[in-house]
Amino acid sequence: MNIKHFPYSNVEEKSVKDFGSTGTTIRVFISEDEAPNFIMRRFEIQPGGQIGVHSHNWEHEIFILKGEVILTNKDGEREKVSQGEFVFIPPNEPHGYINEGKEIVAFICMIPKKKID
Amino acid sequence: MNIKHFPYSNVEEKSVKDFGSTGTTIRVFISEDEAPNFIMRRFEIQPGGQIGVHSHNWEHEIFILKGEVILTNKDGEREKVSQGEFVFIPPNEPHGYINEGKEIVAFICMIPKKKID
Repeated sequence: MNIKHFPYSNVEEKSVKDFGSTGTTIRVFISEDEAPNFIMRRFEIQPGGQIGVHSHNWEHEIFILKGEVILTNKDGEREKVSQGEFVFIPPNEPHGYINEGKEIVAFICMIPKKKID
Repeated sequence: MNIKHFPYSNVEEKSVKDFGSTGTTIRVFISEDEAPNFIMRRFEIQPGGQIGVHSHNWEHEIFILKGEVILTNKDGEREKVSQGEFVFIPPNEPHGYINEGKEIVAFICMIPKKKID
């Protein structure tokens, strides 16, 4: 069969440093060359870690695999999301992530391949 | 914050009957009206259940949440994929899913919103 499959842990884990992020890594499962429409990534945020607030002209669709994470913005609004939750962040909505828990947060986050600029 | 989030179990679970499928349900997290680029779904296949072999002109990107599933095609080729694995099925590649294990299989499966016909 012409399919590709591998454990997520086989993919190189890279630190996320943009937007003042700390304690965060990303694994990109498939390259833009291979994927016709969208890219699946897996993030981990360590306890005390965060992804800084940012926005972009495309949506996120997220599924929380582990832990509990606070979604926030520059106005200090907060939404707690937990394991087993689906999250939709529309285009241009500012968002950051904070792990205030004691457990690692892991989630799947999708982006479109052809981003609207 | 203008985000949407909810536990997967809040979404209506529908039986999958296409392609002779048995013991399989789907939850669609977001509608085509709301999602600019792609749609996230969560599938469950009961032990002994299956999704029949089919193909389409778009790719799948899959993340296995639970269990172990056999990917197969009409030539009887088989690939076993397990919890924590990423799976990429390219456009037009025939594929079915069989749960030969004792545990429920659950996976996230993405499709593009604008499918190529």
